[in-house]
Amino acid sequence: MATSSLVCNTSELAFLSSAIGNGGAAQFICGKLQNAAMQGAATTLAVDNTYLLFSAYLVFAMQLGFAMLCAGSVRAKNTMNIMLTNVLDAATGGLSYYLFGFGFAFGRTESGNNGFIGHFFFGLKDIPSASANMDYSFFLFQWAFAIAAAGITSGSIAERTQFVSYLIYSFFLTGFVYPVVSHWLWSVDGWLSASKPDHVLFGSGAIDFAGSGVVHMVGGIAGFWGAFIEGPRIGRYDSNGRSQRLKGHSATLVVLGTFLLWFGWYGFNPGSFLKISVRYADPFKGNWSGVGRTAVTTMLAGSTAGVTTLFGKRILSGHWNVLDVCNGLLGGFAAITAGCAVVDPWASIICGFVSAWVLMGLNALADKFHFDDPLEAAQLHGGCGAWGLLFVGLFANQNYVQETYGRMGATPHGFLLGGGGKLLAAQVIETLVIAAWVTVTMGPLFLILHKFNLLRISPEDELHGMDLTRHGGFAYYHADESSFHPQGKLEMSVLEQKPNNAHSIM
Amino acid sequence: MATSSLVCNTSELAFLSSAIGNGGAAQFICGKLQNAAMQGAATTLAVDNTYLLFSAYLVFAMQLGFAMLCAGSVRAKNTMNIMLTNVLDAATGGLSYYLFGFGFAFGRTESGNNGFIGHFFFGLKDIPSASANMDYSFFLFQWAFAIAAAGITSGSIAERTQFVSYLIYSFFLTGFVYPVVSHWLWSVDGWLSASKPDHVLFGSGAIDFAGSGVVHMVGGIAGFWGAFIEGPRIGRYDSNGRSQRLKGHSATLVVLGTFLLWFGWYGFNPGSFLKISVRYADPFKGNWSGVGRTAVTTMLAGSTAGVTTLFGKRILSGHWNVLDVCNGLLGGFAAITAGCAVVDPWASIICGFVSAWVLMGLNALADKFHFDDPLEAAQLHGGCGAWGLLFVGLFANQNYVQETYGRMGATPHGFLLGGGGKLLAAQVIETLVIAAWVTVTMGPLFLILHKFNLLRISPEDELHGMDLTRHGGFAYYHADESSFHPQGKLEMSVLEQKPNNAHSIM
Amino acid sequence: MATSSLVCNTSELAFLSSAIGNGGAAQFICGKLQNAAMQGAATTLAVDNTYLLFSAYLVFAMQLGFAMLCAGSVRAKNTMNIMLTNVLDAATGGLSYYLFGFGFAFGRTESGNNGFIGHFFFGLKDIPSASANMDYSFFLFQWAFAIAAAGITSGSIAERTQFVSYLIYSFFLTGFVYPVVSHWLWSVDGWLSASKPDHVLFGSGAIDFAGSGVVHMVGGIAGFWGAFIEGPRIGRYDSNGRSQRLKGHSATLVVLGTFLLWFGWYGFNPGSFLKISVRYADPFKGNWSGVGRTAVTTMLAGSTAGVTTLFGKRILSGHWNVLDVCNGLLGGFAAITAGCAVVDPWASIICGFVSAWVLMGLNALADKFHFDDPLEAAQLHGGCGAWGLLFVGLFANQNYVQETYGRMGATPHGFLLGGGGKLLAAQVIETLVIAAWVTVTMGPLFLILHKFNLLRISPEDELHGMDLTRHGGFAYYHADESSFHPQGKLEMSVLEQKPNNAHSIM
Repeated sequence: MATSSLVCNTSELAFLSSAIGNGGAAQFICGKLQNAAMQGAATTLAVDNTYLLFSAYLVFAMQLGFAMLCAGSVRAKNTMNIMLTNVLDAATGGLSYYLFGFGFAFGRTESGNNGFIGHFFFGLKDIPSASANMDYSFFLFQWAFAIAAAGITSGSIAERTQFVSYLIYSFFLTGFVYPVVSHWLWSVDGWLSASKPDHVLFGSGAIDFAGSGVVHMVGGIAGFWGAFIEGPRIGRYDSNGRSQRLKGHSATLVVLGTFLLWFGWYGFNPGSFLKISVRYADPFKGNWSGVGRTAVTTMLAGSTAGVTTLFGKRILSGHWNVLDVCNGLLGGFAAITAGCAVVDPWASIICGFVSAWVLMGLNALADKFHFDDPLEAAQLHGGCGAWGLLFVGLFANQNYVQETYGRMGATPHGFLLGGGGKLLAAQVIETLVIAAWVTVTMGPLFLILHKFNLLRISPEDELHGMDLTRHGGFAYYHADESSFHPQGKLEMSVLEQKPNNAHSIM
Repeated sequence: MATSSLVCNTSELAFLSSAIGNGGAAQFICGKLQNAAMQGAATTLAVDNTYLLFSAYLVFAMQLGFAMLCAGSVRAKNTMNIMLTNVLDAATGGLSYYLFGFGFAFGRTESGNNGFIGHFFFGLKDIPSASANMDYSFFLFQWAFAIAAAGITSGSIAERTQFVSYLIYSFFLTGFVYPVVSHWLWSVDGWLSASKPDHVLFGSGAIDFAGSGVVHMVGGIAGFWGAFIEGPRIGRYDSNGRSQRLKGHSATLVVLGTFLLWFGWYGFNPGSFLKISVRYADPFKGNWSGVGRTAVTTMLAGSTAGVTTLFGKRILSGHWNVLDVCNGLLGGFAAITAGCAVVDPWASIICGFVSAWVLMGLNALADKFHFDDPLEAAQLHGGCGAWGLLFVGLFANQNYVQETYGRMGATPHGFLLGGGGKLLAAQVIETLVIAAWVTVTMGPLFLILHKFNLLRISPEDELHGMDLTRHGGFAYYHADESSFHPQGKLEMSVLEQKPNNAHSIM
Repeated sequence: MATSSLVCNTSELAFLSSAIGNGGAAQFICGKLQNAAMQGAATTLAVDNTYLLFSAYLVFAMQLGFAMLCAGSVRAKNTMNIMLTNVLDAATGGLSYYLFGFGFAFGRTESGNNGFIGHFFFGLKDIPSASANMDYSFFLFQWAFAIAAAGITSGSIAERTQFVSYLIYSFFLTGFVYPVVSHWLWSVDGWLSASKPDHVLFGSGAIDFAGSGVVHMVGGIAGFWGAFIEGPRIGRYDSNGRSQRLKGHSATLVVLGTFLLWFGWYGFNPGSFLKISVRYADPFKGNWSGVGRTAVTTMLAGSTAGVTTLFGKRILSGHWNVLDVCNGLLGGFAAITAGCAVVDPWASIICGFVSAWVLMGLNALADKFHFDDPLEAAQLHGGCGAWGLLFVGLFANQNYVQETYGRMGATPHGFLLGGGGKLLAAQVIETLVIAAWVTVTMGPLFLILHKFNLLRISPEDELHGMDLTRHGGFAYYHADESSFHPQGKLEMSVLEQKPNNAHSIM
């Protein structure tokens, strides 16, 4: 039987030409097969790029989700500030990731690479690269991931951080701290990577398929140090040390943001296969099955976490609270992100169930220690992200690991499924190393900003809100200075002045 | 001429090997053709799954659309409540549809199926299934449909229903009532299905391509019974029996929700082809043409209904009202959903025009009989959905029915296009059977809940709003308890205290 | 070597049949190759239509983005009005573009076409058309573009225009003015088109890949004349002639709209390739690379413009203002839209940088001359759009022009890249011709409406807001007439009445 390629060369068909005494026969048939191969290859590239680009667009939509979630979760007086950071995450991140972030993360040549950091492809030089198998779509997809990490951090330190600090830490985080971690895990050269051909770490490598560690822990741990160093917002803990929930100004925006994040997560997790047309042994199955299954595990983990939080919080607080459900959902998503491609749907339900309790537990702990994170971002992305990494080590299915990472034969997989401890050990290593790396890079940065009084705004600014003092005014102007207030007393007086219209107004 | 398959077996090419005296010739060429076939099949599966998954994501976005539409259409004091139900439609629906809903709807083996209900594939066991031609993408797409039905119902009974009732009826509706109907119409085993090989119902089967009946009538009829049993909201009809519009709190959210639903409908209707790569006789045409045409008929029906409503309501009420236009649009979409794939664009304009008047008529009727549905969901999804089913029986184009349902020769189609009465009869049957099924299942359920005082909230809760009493607080906090009101008097006093800043604030 | 087609005819293989004495051999092998070709063609069409349809859905999402951007940028009292125009842009545009707009723009037969206007395909007759290479997906994509232009114009004349005028000008603009321009540039028959086989204009044709001119300048210039003829809103310039910013009522909506526009622009620009499966000479590259690169240049131009505006406005006004950044971003997108496919990523940064200053400069100029455009739409879409056309003439890369427009050999390209002045001259011509065409069509229309007192609303309506007087009421009802105000004093009294609940409420 022929090899799996369509391409033949004329020597393979020489028997034909010689037998029938026509030198063109082999060439003719080979040429046709060559054409079929070329057309097939082009169509495959078209499909894979379509899939990856639209996945990237969905991941980008998460930035809108973050913006709405953050806006709704802060008080009205700081809305302009937080939205500005969300818009800039995307915009400045676009420039810095183009100039050097992508190069640090994925730069590689056919020689001279290392496991710690990439150093090619700066400014998209040499992209598209057939040898590295990267087209522009891959850059766009990775950019959309990079800007998510900084967004997480800005949630943790919302409502009390100077804008100049934001500019500094987000540049450092998106441009260096994050790309290095993504190189470790997602570049085939990365020392932690499960894609690295020699699987250097315990013969396994760590599996962080879409970034519970790379994105969520990085953003969450950075946010933890920022929020820890800044301390709680004024009024968050009263003079008796009691916790006062400083409610966000719009639950509608929170729900809008949560749904948009859910929507975008279908790009984040299933999109991380990068190619959808890869075939498996069974001709009905291929990456398209893996992509679909990943969408399902993502949905189930989030759903389970949301429902668990609903009942958990009902018992704890006495209310059916949509805001808690939203955060529960997001925690489930953050947790499943590492393992989404390599676990069974039933396992994703366990993942979501536990992540709900991880989040509720960490929130209780944060309250106890007077740690104030307006978005619960450190607990949610840091805590549930870490749980997600360990979960992979417990529940990864061998078949899926083989298919997803192109491995043959016995492959380290989930400890509870009989896969031994190697993968679990690699996952623990990833968790610890990410926590340490972000701590030693972002911690000192926040401390320095703090020492130079660049980190926290003044108490006056905090009371009045940053929008008024720093960002040109409030986000909302329902009163209209030029005429009259559309609701309330003045409306009444208008109606009194124009009794003829009174009926038509209703 | 060879058959349409690429695959050959070596015996077919034996003449070649024997003629040229080389036993490998046939094997070699067959092997190459086999490779071409395998690569082509994989690419086709990749395309079809990409198309179906992204369609599913769009349908999921409709849940966000529903949430925003519902939130904007209720009063601010009940916003948290309605959004919680929308989030839970997706989350609890995810679990229940995974555990049993999908199995009831589409479970099938190579033997032992029946036309009433499926009973395999619970918990996604045996999925992907090559024999049933279902991969994870199909599950995700169907889940996104299932959660829409419950969302419709929650709109009908908004602002006055106990949360525990919501949990009960939505579980029953999404987990059983809806899956059974979808089995009837969309499983190849379903007794009403136009896909059933023997077309048992009048040699035709009913055509409900994307679910005017399966989704919209099911949700709308359920909502009708809920709202009917609960009765109108306090204040909806005054002591003289006059109708008082209890305005929703945000038209912006209504428009946002409507546009998101429109956006998502491009997944709902065109996505219901499930595969986009199927070829027709004309090599330029295939399901991709059908998918595109479906997007066009959907857009035209909604647009026509919206514009018709604009002028209709202008005449009736004297205003150009965007909220009416939004509901008009949605009614047009609900109506075209059954026939979108099998009617001509010009016919979709008729569909939309009539649906606008159906909705305006039913709204007038509802007002006359003091029926209160805050979202007009029973009228819109139930009424326009039913019209949509009949419309198919009148206007289905034979060519499109053949292409869409893979039929040959004379095929029952639209009565007004000379297609006879069989299809129309099947559509009438579907309409009546769905109305009856939902009535005998959901009606008693709502009655029982009513009898046990679990259905409606207390008048006190209704006046104060459910958010305050049941859901942990209001959706909006523009006032900031910890400092001062960002607008109004206190802002002035701040400005007076800090005259130096007065200029920069402007 | 065989030609690039897979298809062979049996005469080509006659040598085989005669050599082996089996007349079926050639037929058999040809038949198989024919099957491969048919399946490949179908898959290619499926991929291209999937890509184009989902791009169209994204472009449609921009209409939602416009609606939210406009709503947030006007005062609360005019929100219903502006949102109605946005919804109707899509809905009435759907009908008019179906009936005749598409025919004017792209109607063509195999003979009888002209460069000024199309005149076939009215009501989608003869679509799908293999000879014109158009399926329904192409119509849907072009419709989504057409409705964008009218949306731009309605922003310019927001808050002071009679609704009947809107109905008239938007019908004329979407149905005639815009389609004619799109025929010039995007039909292969268009006299300005770079796709026209004989490249009649300077042997080059103008390059307006996704419509900096066709869409943005058309909408912006039309808006300019409307806003110029109407004059500024009451209160926009005080009695001393000083500019008073009439702040929009919701920055959250502005950010939401901006992000949605950004999201949709990934359909607008990369989608304008229309097909993603076209191969280039290098087998790793094809339109998929071009599509990806276009997404990247779009992102970089917008990001650069946003960041430039951030710092530029910080220097000019002293604030870090998210609303300015949003408009800066959109200006960058409008500018790169013409050249997105044919410039290098580094050049797109220059494009965005300049466009930020174009917008800031034109805004300063507008203020100086008391020109009032509530959305800055004339400046942004007209001004940055014009800059974008010139930019192509300066920076278009020859390789990309060849690949994108299927040209061979020396091809006019960017003046600054050594491509000569022909392309630049064509770009200047396009800029001038569009400005002139829109001026001579829309200018007189607005003047006539003005003369008949149909254009501007009365000062009373303007002060009270159009929502109250024309559109059935305000957009927001946070106060609930049927019970009590959910915030403020009455809430307090409720709490006092129910002291037992006071704790759980917090």
